[in-house]
Amino acid sequence: MTAHTFDLLGLGNAIVDVIARAEEDFLASHKLRKGAMTLIDQTTADQLYAAMGPATIMSGGSAANTAVGVVELGARAAFIGKIRQDEIGHIFAHDLRATGVHFATPAAAEGPATARSFIFVTPDGERTMNTYLGACQNLGPDDVDEPIVRAAAIVYLEGYLWDPPAAKDAFVKASRIAHAAHRRVALSLSDAFCVDRYRSEFLHLLRSRMVDIVLANESELKALYQTADFASAVEALRQEGVLAVVTRAHHGSLVVTHSQTLAVPAHPIDNLVDTTGAGDLFAAGFLAGLARGVDLTGCARLGALAAAEIIQHIGARPQTGLRDLAQQNGLGLTSMP
Amino acid sequence: MTAHTFDLLGLGNAIVDVIARAEEDFLASHKLRKGAMTLIDQTTADQLYAAMGPATIMSGGSAANTAVGVVELGARAAFIGKIRQDEIGHIFAHDLRATGVHFATPAAAEGPATARSFIFVTPDGERTMNTYLGACQNLGPDDVDEPIVRAAAIVYLEGYLWDPPAAKDAFVKASRIAHAAHRRVALSLSDAFCVDRYRSEFLHLLRSRMVDIVLANESELKALYQTADFASAVEALRQEGVLAVVTRAHHGSLVVTHSQTLAVPAHPIDNLVDTTGAGDLFAAGFLAGLARGVDLTGCARLGALAAAEIIQHIGARPQTGLRDLAQQNGLGLTSMP
Repeated sequence: MTAHTFDLLGLGNAIVDVIARAEEDFLASHKLRKGAMTLIDQTTADQLYAAMGPATIMSGGSAANTAVGVVELGARAAFIGKIRQDEIGHIFAHDLRATGVHFATPAAAEGPATARSFIFVTPDGERTMNTYLGACQNLGPDDVDEPIVRAAAIVYLEGYLWDPPAAKDAFVKASRIAHAAHRRVALSLSDAFCVDRYRSEFLHLLRSRMVDIVLANESELKALYQTADFASAVEALRQEGVLAVVTRAHHGSLVVTHSQTLAVPAHPIDNLVDTTGAGDLFAAGFLAGLARGVDLTGCARLGALAAAEIIQHIGARPQTGLRDLAQQNGLGLTSMP
Repeated sequence: MTAHTFDLLGLGNAIVDVIARAEEDFLASHKLRKGAMTLIDQTTADQLYAAMGPATIMSGGSAANTAVGVVELGARAAFIGKIRQDEIGHIFAHDLRATGVHFATPAAAEGPATARSFIFVTPDGERTMNTYLGACQNLGPDDVDEPIVRAAAIVYLEGYLWDPPAAKDAFVKASRIAHAAHRRVALSLSDAFCVDRYRSEFLHLLRSRMVDIVLANESELKALYQTADFASAVEALRQEGVLAVVTRAHHGSLVVTHSQTLAVPAHPIDNLVDTTGAGDLFAAGFLAGLARGVDLTGCARLGALAAAEIIQHIGARPQTGLRDLAQQNGLGLTSMP
């Protein structure tokens, strides 16, 4: 195994977030599934935007947010995802590159517009996402650049990639290249409804060792094993024999391996504003730590710290210096191994 | 004079803000004029965006921000300004209409793109704006819809309108219609460099009574009378015989009439984050109060309250319920006269 150029390569949907505050009754009257990510078509997207209040526009996308978090923590990241050559795609590419994430996936010259997610943040800080996938539907194996995959310590794949038709082929290709280069492959389960859509395929990924590391929150884990009992879901997860980390919001996280369970507390916050990106930034801290040889408890603490930053403001991209924050908490990453 | 449908009609540049934090040395290395609004061409806009960090995108535009503030305070507003039929223009129109501002100016089907302002917020909270006017250059008298002007208690014009070539004709047309309908016309001096560009024309507007109310900050007022002495600038302003209000950041504001000067303190804030929109929102509070028959001190207090809200977060559109905030401070507007 040669030295790696990137600590993390994220593969995911390239999405720009359109964010507005909304009251609970807005969700009810528009039949939005609170806390979930729901796929919508162009017509619904237009209708929802027309009904939405004044919005803030910020780049998003689950694995892209994670890649940004990794860079903000002082490590190196790349991203593969599909935009179109349009104004929203230009915004997505700008924000990623401006952060320092390597991003070279060719933008589609035609076809559907760059993806956007209409995100409603309720007074309790919960986010409800409604995503028009647009150009993401054209991500395929040709977009997986072999040298980039080989150069990354960890290839990180969002479960949401099972939605666009050709992306899972891209996922499989990336996993094969990574393993041939003795790299690790991580999967986020993304969303409980997403798990419902692709349960058997996600389990197959774990059991076929296409994936070495899995990240999930409590509801995604319960959805995976179709149980309401968290403890039994954790035991089922342990039997998969992969490295797993389960986030539990303010209850902290559990790192689950075949031989042990480590419980790590959440990082304290002053004010919960918007949970968008909490899981993505937890993944950023956890995986950046892992790539840099931090022990598992330290990885989970770094994940908790990054998640704590992101939920205290609107949007899923960090605003405060994560690197300084990590150092102040004794979690600063060492230089490139 | 018939009853009015709108408390305020804003006429201004239709701009979407692209906002990023930046350090002082970024301003220096890109030769940006701190605290000012500088006009840039398409090439400079592209270069500046490429150099800019990850950005938050929110609708802006001085008079448009004011119109939004008026609505958020519980009064009614309309806006006239030029966008193009493109994604950024769609965002601008959406955010305005979603707030409840009446906006019906036809979007240009061709020509330059919708305007954007690249705004750098330094750690001291000051904003430095660099504006590509784009489609705003096509605003002209035909866009001034007579019934809308006649229906507004106050027509509010931003000084920035002197930049796009045909907009001043639109301004003059709006002023004539308003005065024929016995309405009042207000002008914001917008920016000290803008005053430098159009000093004699702005003075002519006051002296010809094309304008009845003028709003300025301290540096704009000094630029208008080409003096470093604030007191003498205030006296010169008083001699114009119009209703004037001069904002002085944390020193509060002065309402200046022919016979008196009222000093009104600033509204207390916890944390200065971003001064973008401070003047626009002061204008919103002051003019909404004026349209609803509030006394001059109350108008300036309402302006200070709205400005205090806007400078405590990123972006020039209100986030907190201004109406509730006004009521909590005993400044709630009464219902439509």
